[in-house]
Amino acid sequence: MISGTSLLERADALAAITETPPALTRSYLTPEHKRASDLVLGWMRAAGMNAALDAAGNVAGRYEGAKPGRPCLLLGSHLDTVRDAGKYDGILGVLTAIACVDALNRAGERLPFAIEVIGFGDEEGVRFGGTLIGSRAIAGAFDPALLQLRDAAGISLAEAYRAFGLDPARIAALAKKPEDVLAYVELHIEQGPRLESEGLPVGVVTAIAGFTRLAVEIAGTAGHAGTVPMKGRRDALAAAAECILAVERRGGAPGLVATVGKIEAAPGAINVIPGAARFAVDMRSADDALREAAIAELTAELRAIAARRGVGLEIRGTQSSRAASCAPWLMDRLGAAVKAEGLPEFRLMSGAGHDGMALIRIADIGMLFVRCARGISHNPAEAIMAEDAEIGARVLLRFIRAFQPKGAAR
Amino acid sequence: MISGTSLLERADALAAITETPPALTRSYLTPEHKRASDLVLGWMRAAGMNAALDAAGNVAGRYEGAKPGRPCLLLGSHLDTVRDAGKYDGILGVLTAIACVDALNRAGERLPFAIEVIGFGDEEGVRFGGTLIGSRAIAGAFDPALLQLRDAAGISLAEAYRAFGLDPARIAALAKKPEDVLAYVELHIEQGPRLESEGLPVGVVTAIAGFTRLAVEIAGTAGHAGTVPMKGRRDALAAAAECILAVERRGGAPGLVATVGKIEAAPGAINVIPGAARFAVDMRSADDALREAAIAELTAELRAIAARRGVGLEIRGTQSSRAASCAPWLMDRLGAAVKAEGLPEFRLMSGAGHDGMALIRIADIGMLFVRCARGISHNPAEAIMAEDAEIGARVLLRFIRAFQPKGAAR
Repeated sequence: MISGTSLLERADALAAITETPPALTRSYLTPEHKRASDLVLGWMRAAGMNAALDAAGNVAGRYEGAKPGRPCLLLGSHLDTVRDAGKYDGILGVLTAIACVDALNRAGERLPFAIEVIGFGDEEGVRFGGTLIGSRAIAGAFDPALLQLRDAAGISLAEAYRAFGLDPARIAALAKKPEDVLAYVELHIEQGPRLESEGLPVGVVTAIAGFTRLAVEIAGTAGHAGTVPMKGRRDALAAAAECILAVERRGGAPGLVATVGKIEAAPGAINVIPGAARFAVDMRSADDALREAAIAELTAELRAIAARRGVGLEIRGTQSSRAASCAPWLMDRLGAAVKAEGLPEFRLMSGAGHDGMALIRIADIGMLFVRCARGISHNPAEAIMAEDAEIGARVLLRFIRAFQPKGAAR
Repeated sequence: MISGTSLLERADALAAITETPPALTRSYLTPEHKRASDLVLGWMRAAGMNAALDAAGNVAGRYEGAKPGRPCLLLGSHLDTVRDAGKYDGILGVLTAIACVDALNRAGERLPFAIEVIGFGDEEGVRFGGTLIGSRAIAGAFDPALLQLRDAAGISLAEAYRAFGLDPARIAALAKKPEDVLAYVELHIEQGPRLESEGLPVGVVTAIAGFTRLAVEIAGTAGHAGTVPMKGRRDALAAAAECILAVERRGGAPGLVATVGKIEAAPGAINVIPGAARFAVDMRSADDALREAAIAELTAELRAIAARRGVGLEIRGTQSSRAASCAPWLMDRLGAAVKAEGLPEFRLMSGAGHDGMALIRIADIGMLFVRCARGISHNPAEAIMAEDAEIGARVLLRFIRAFQPKGAAR
């Protein structure tokens, strides 16, 4: 029997390990990362796992099946946080997976497959800018060029590994082979408001949205706010404002969301017409074709706005990722576990990115979302109910116990 | 005969006195202010004036009329600059006034009135945030509360006066009586594009626009750019974008200009829906009633936008100033001087603020604008033609020679 309260207590214990007390910030390859890893390793070992830190700074534990050396069901999430973070993003998935293994171990149950639980060291990308470094290493998608990334203090990722006691040359060997991983399944807080508005504690994820990020730069002409007639102006911020509303409109189409989260106007004085403006667009969809078409249409619309206003426009794609669809067979089995707990099965998309985006290279992926208060995440106000944490754990444990590899008779 | 080239050479000599070489920055009560004042005092004395630094750090020179002790025609402009400034904003008006007196002095001409030329020490307000400190002192509008203003280094205005060798207690005595000032007339570069687009070297100013400045704050709800559906969003930046376009639209009405020069969105991350946005509005008009009505309408429109989007809105008036109309009799006489130089008389509003805004308390004001290249000012690219500087000086000298107090038969 798993206790939701003890899951929340463990999340509290991890939240106390922070670079910015009393706020929670725990980034990759810091002393706090090390201390958190040690704590989690202890919990893994107490749950009957062989556990160690790997060369990429992931905490990895293995619970052998009835016969040792079998392919594994891979469970997990990440242990790093954003700045001024909540206590559950990532963490809850690692703690729940450990609690499930602990329940099996206490009952003396060994399954026909192994279970591995990983607490990824970097998912958020706060320190070095790259994201999913931990899961990319496991998926064999760690690009050695990442080692050149530098943090705000100028420390390279390669240097940070060595300072942490890790040898970056050994990261390549962490890559798991597809035949060794039966599936990757992650429990995570929703970070959105849909389960709450449905009144449900858990939901089955259909896909992790793909995204496109654009950096947009508008070049107008600075001038005195009092002396330049409105007709002759090429106001970069007014043009940006029109573009921001275009982004919002495009994002309103079914199956899409789009956001401008950052803006800058230069020179930025109250009495000077902005000569330049820069903003960032983030557009997401579970449907890659829909997203790509929307980006093409948006780009054309922004160009039309710029042309009409006589301002320069530069649009640069800074990042993009294809959607990662959850495997229908895993959705079905997670859904069956939800129903077996007496709850309606509800399916929803993940607008946020998750480690499954990397692991889909080597395994089918599935995700279970747990309701979070008001959909708030990446924020100290992030909150979940102990009851929901417990339901999530019960569903995951039921899923694990009933798990059979893809294609196996049910 | 005044030479445009020597006016430009003097502007170059002043531009070499800067806190930020090679860029030009000369702010109030700095060692550079002192050095510039000494240079200008020398030129004033060479032009036959009694000249000294006054208690407010203004350079003040007097050229007596045929009979000493007569009321004066007050000429001048300011000697301080913005950061990374151009060479002519303010400076040209002081240099031209001195050159006119020099021409009279060389010809041995004494007029039925005195001429005073002032180079105001602070118009831009760069160092202490207050503007027009120099001209406010002369107009008897120096508020002793200003002495508490502090610069970026924490030095108060009172301390800065003493460090400069001035006694702030003597500022009140600088106030001129209305009966001692026949008029205040200032030559200044246009800082806008209208003379250039009309193909004219000089223009007669009708009024210095009044302005209203607003600080607008929008309170939305921050959230994850991927997980919050578009429909439930209260995106503070999207609301701000709609407001910015409303400001631009209002500013497009005849007789108005309106600008949003500054914006900030918080938290300001590419993947976070902005929970807050702040921007500043600057609206100007020569017609106070028109401006006030437009501000009321704009405020209502911003409130409607905020209400429709479900975001909080706070609008705070941060600064405002009534328009300062130039006196029709001074416009007519400046216009007559322009026409006597064989040029068409062209009248235009000043969207920028000038020392006349303070001096209108004690005297009728008039202004003559000189064309500046592409309307650019507050910028090292600020440029004028020597020919235009010379025409401006010829018009001003002609105006001075023909000057008679208001109401006198012409």
